[in-house]
Amino acid sequence: MTEERELTLEEQLAALEAERDEHLNDLKRVAAEFENYRKRVSRDQASLVARAHERLVKELLPVLDDLERALAAAEEHEEAKLEEGVRLVQRELKAALDREGLAEIETDGVFDPHVHEALLSQPSEAEEGSVLEVLQKGYKLGDRVLRPARVVVAAPQETGGG
Amino acid sequence: MTEERELTLEEQLAALEAERDEHLNDLKRVAAEFENYRKRVSRDQASLVARAHERLVKELLPVLDDLERALAAAEEHEEAKLEEGVRLVQRELKAALDREGLAEIETDGVFDPHVHEALLSQPSEAEEGSVLEVLQKGYKLGDRVLRPARVVVAAPQETGGG
Repeated sequence: MTEERELTLEEQLAALEAERDEHLNDLKRVAAEFENYRKRVSRDQASLVARAHERLVKELLPVLDDLERALAAAEEHEEAKLEEGVRLVQRELKAALDREGLAEIETDGVFDPHVHEALLSQPSEAEEGSVLEVLQKGYKLGDRVLRPARVVVAAPQETGGG
Repeated sequence: MTEERELTLEEQLAALEAERDEHLNDLKRVAAEFENYRKRVSRDQASLVARAHERLVKELLPVLDDLERALAAAEEHEEAKLEEGVRLVQRELKAALDREGLAEIETDGVFDPHVHEALLSQPSEAEEGSVLEVLQKGYKLGDRVLRPARVVVAAPQETGGG
């Protein structure tokens, strides 16, 4: 009985030792993988941003080309060609930015402080707070407001006794 | 003696068990941290790219504004204003892209297949392989060639008997 018990304890010891070593090895391995992953991530993030930029910058090269062509036309006093060129440039730039998710902020209707900035308020027949005029277009990129639309809004209607 | 030995084994067992449990807990904790880090990284990478883009797109908004102003001038047949506007747009776009690290590829001197693309070769007094004309400007972003400069190069001088 005692002998059997001692043997069991030794076996248990050996088994526990094996388990402990296995966990310790796993721990070291996972910790090393984690550390390598961390290092790789910080390298990757830099190149990810660089690659993303690269794509957008590359899309803008034809815009630069066409601008230069338009300016060459201007130097030759080819006004029609200049104007046509500028229209092309504007379409190209807009299209490149649209592909990035850029969208104009709508300004029909009522003033929305989340996407509009009121630079002036003017007396008007229109309902108080409606947008009367857009002074500078606003833009969103996805859900984020890159620049609010700068607008003139209708002032409150005058009420008696102020 | 036997009793002392048994006690020691039991103590050893308890100690080993504690060690094993500690390593297992550490392993579980590190694995969980690793997993969370992985998840965070994949979220971060998306927003990192989005933020990087956002900055560049934002810089391009004044370019869009000025293009639209130039086109408005064209509609009013204010040619001088149109031309001036286009020059401004070109400077702004160039400056925004310069800040991103965009640089024109140099084309003075000898043809370099790493940064030039020969579209034509022409007989010339110039040394074989020298760049005679640039058909389309090339650009680098940092060290990377975004687009090679497309050029005309000097053909080999004719030699007798061919």
